[in-house]
Amino acid sequence: MSIRVGICGHGNLGRGVEHAIMRCDDMELVAIFTRRNPSQVIPVTQGARVIHIAEVLDMKAQIDVMVLCGGSVTDLPQQTPEFAEHFNVVDSFDTHADIPAHFEKVDAAAKRGGRSAIISAGWDPGLFSLNRMMSNAILPDGCDYTFWGKGLSQGHSDAIRRIPGVVDARQYTVPIESALHSVRSGENPYLTPRQKHRRECYVVAQEDADKEKIRQEIVNMPNYFSDYDTSVTFVTREELLRDHNEMPHGGFVIRSGKTGDAPNGHIIEYRLKLDSNPEFTASVLVAYARAAYRLNREGEYGCRTIFDIPPAYISPLSEAELRERFL
Amino acid sequence: MSIRVGICGHGNLGRGVEHAIMRCDDMELVAIFTRRNPSQVIPVTQGARVIHIAEVLDMKAQIDVMVLCGGSVTDLPQQTPEFAEHFNVVDSFDTHADIPAHFEKVDAAAKRGGRSAIISAGWDPGLFSLNRMMSNAILPDGCDYTFWGKGLSQGHSDAIRRIPGVVDARQYTVPIESALHSVRSGENPYLTPRQKHRRECYVVAQEDADKEKIRQEIVNMPNYFSDYDTSVTFVTREELLRDHNEMPHGGFVIRSGKTGDAPNGHIIEYRLKLDSNPEFTASVLVAYARAAYRLNREGEYGCRTIFDIPPAYISPLSEAELRERFL
Repeated sequence: MSIRVGICGHGNLGRGVEHAIMRCDDMELVAIFTRRNPSQVIPVTQGARVIHIAEVLDMKAQIDVMVLCGGSVTDLPQQTPEFAEHFNVVDSFDTHADIPAHFEKVDAAAKRGGRSAIISAGWDPGLFSLNRMMSNAILPDGCDYTFWGKGLSQGHSDAIRRIPGVVDARQYTVPIESALHSVRSGENPYLTPRQKHRRECYVVAQEDADKEKIRQEIVNMPNYFSDYDTSVTFVTREELLRDHNEMPHGGFVIRSGKTGDAPNGHIIEYRLKLDSNPEFTASVLVAYARAAYRLNREGEYGCRTIFDIPPAYISPLSEAELRERFL
Repeated sequence: MSIRVGICGHGNLGRGVEHAIMRCDDMELVAIFTRRNPSQVIPVTQGARVIHIAEVLDMKAQIDVMVLCGGSVTDLPQQTPEFAEHFNVVDSFDTHADIPAHFEKVDAAAKRGGRSAIISAGWDPGLFSLNRMMSNAILPDGCDYTFWGKGLSQGHSDAIRRIPGVVDARQYTVPIESALHSVRSGENPYLTPRQKHRRECYVVAQEDADKEKIRQEIVNMPNYFSDYDTSVTFVTREELLRDHNEMPHGGFVIRSGKTGDAPNGHIIEYRLKLDSNPEFTASVLVAYARAAYRLNREGEYGCRTIFDIPPAYISPLSEAELRERFL
C-alpha cells in the first residue's frame, strides 16, 4: 500500500515534489491542485491528474498527505491552517519570526480535524534548525554560526530588479572562507555581516541605462547590500540565462563548544551544497510527508516540527532495518 | 527538580559524563558506581559519592537515569541488560555488528522492569548514524561515505603495543584530503581503504630493538595496516607523553545524492572535530540521558536508539522555546 500524496501548488517546489515522489517506492502522486486553469498546468509525472483547488475537498478520501508548495508570504499562512483541518499536511513555511503564530493556527486546525501537520520542514528552517538545536543540547557551552551559500537569493535578486534601468538580475550570497576557517579552528570569533558573507550580483541593464548609477544604488541599498562587500557584474540577457539559470544554495551550521576542565574544544559542522534549492527542499518535504502520514495513523493529531519527529519516521525502512543498516 | 543521574564506571568516559553534567542546569550527579574499591576512585565533582557496584540496587529510588560508561567488549553486553530492568539507562555500545542482539536483550529487560533504555548514543554509532539515516531518507538516490579522523584509534594503538620490542604507541587515522575533495565535488568515486585513510604511528621502542623490523611488522600487519599507507615515527617515551597524550577524533559523514531530471546533485555533509573523544561522547550520552528520563515519565518503556527519539527530548528547553530559538 503506497502513501497517496497530493501536491498543492505547481511552481519550482511543486515540480520538485513530483520528482521526489518518483524516487520513493512507497509513495504515489494522486493529484496536483492548482489555482490556475488545470489545463494549463503540465505535470512532470506522466498521466498525473491536475485538479482545480476549489475541488480539493472532494479528494479528502483519496489523499493520505498533502504537500503544500505555496509561498511563505501569502499562500502558506492561509493555506496550511485551512488544509490542516481536512488533510495531513506538510509545508516549508520559512518566515522565521512568524513560525510560532503559524504553528498555533495549524495546531488548532489539525486537532479540530483529527489530522497531523508538520510545518517548516525544509532545510532552513528544517535541517539547519535541527542541527542548531541538537548541537546546543549536546554542547551547552558554545557558540553558533550559520553561513549561507554559495546560493541564489530570490529576495535580493528581486530587490535589484526593482531598480529603474534594471531588466533582470541574480544575486548570490557567498560565505567568506577566512571566516569559516576561523570558526572551524575554534577561535569563536565575533563576526559582522560583512565578515561572514559577500554578495555577487549579475545584472542585465537597459541599453541606455547609467550602469554606474545602478551599481551605486545596489551597493548602498540598506538592509540588503550596504552592510556587505558587494560586487556588481553587468551581463547580457543571454549570458544571464546561460550562466545563471540554476538555483544552487546551501550553507553551513557550525557549533563550536567546550567540555571538561582543560577545556577541550569541539566543532560540529553540518553542511549542505545544493545544485537545486527547490528540488532539495522538496525532497525534505516528501520525507516528512511520510512522517505526517505515520503520525496520523498513530493518532498523533496536531502540529509538529522537525524537533518533535522521531527521525525513523521519515524513512520507509522499519526500525529493525534502520538499526542494522545505519546504526 | 533536577534529573538525578548515576554514573556506572569511572574511566575517561565516566569522568567526561561528570564534566557534562556540571554544564547542565537541569541535572545533578547522585553517585558514581564502581567495581573498584570506592575509596580509590577520585571523582571530578566535588563531594560526589562513590559507591561499590554491588550496592547499586539500594539506590534505585534515588536515581532517575543511569549512564553506563563501561566498555563495549565485555562490560556493556552484560551491564546494560542487567541495569535496564531496574534503571532508566543510556549507553554508547559501539560494536556495530552486535547492536541488533544488544537491542533485543536491553529491550526485553527494560520492558520487564517498566524502564526506558537508549543504546549506542555516542557519535559513531550515534550522531553519525543519525546523519546517515536521515540523509538516505531525504536523498534516496545517492552514495554514502564515512571518513574518520584525524583521530586516535585505541584498537590500532593496542595492536602496535603487542609487537615485541614496542614499549608504547599511538596510532592516528587520517582521512585523505583528495578523497574528501572528490566526494564533496559529487564525483561519487569508488574508494579503496587506502584511498580513504592513511595511518600515522608514533612508537616508543626498547633501546636495543630492531626498529626497521618493528616498522615492517606494523606496515604489513593484516586488517590493521596492510591495506593502508602507514607512516611509522619512533619517538622517546617523553615525546609520546608530551605530544600524543590527547584523545582527538572526529570524521565526516557525507551523502552525495541526485534529484530531478537534470539531474541535480546535492551534498549533505556532517563533520565532527573533537579535541577529546571521551568528553564529547559523554556529552552525547548526557543529552540522551535527558531523553531516557522523559521517555520513562511518558510511559515509553523498552529500548530505543537515536532513530526513535524526538530530537526535542535531548534539550532542556520546552518545545515552544525550541521553535522560537532554533527553528
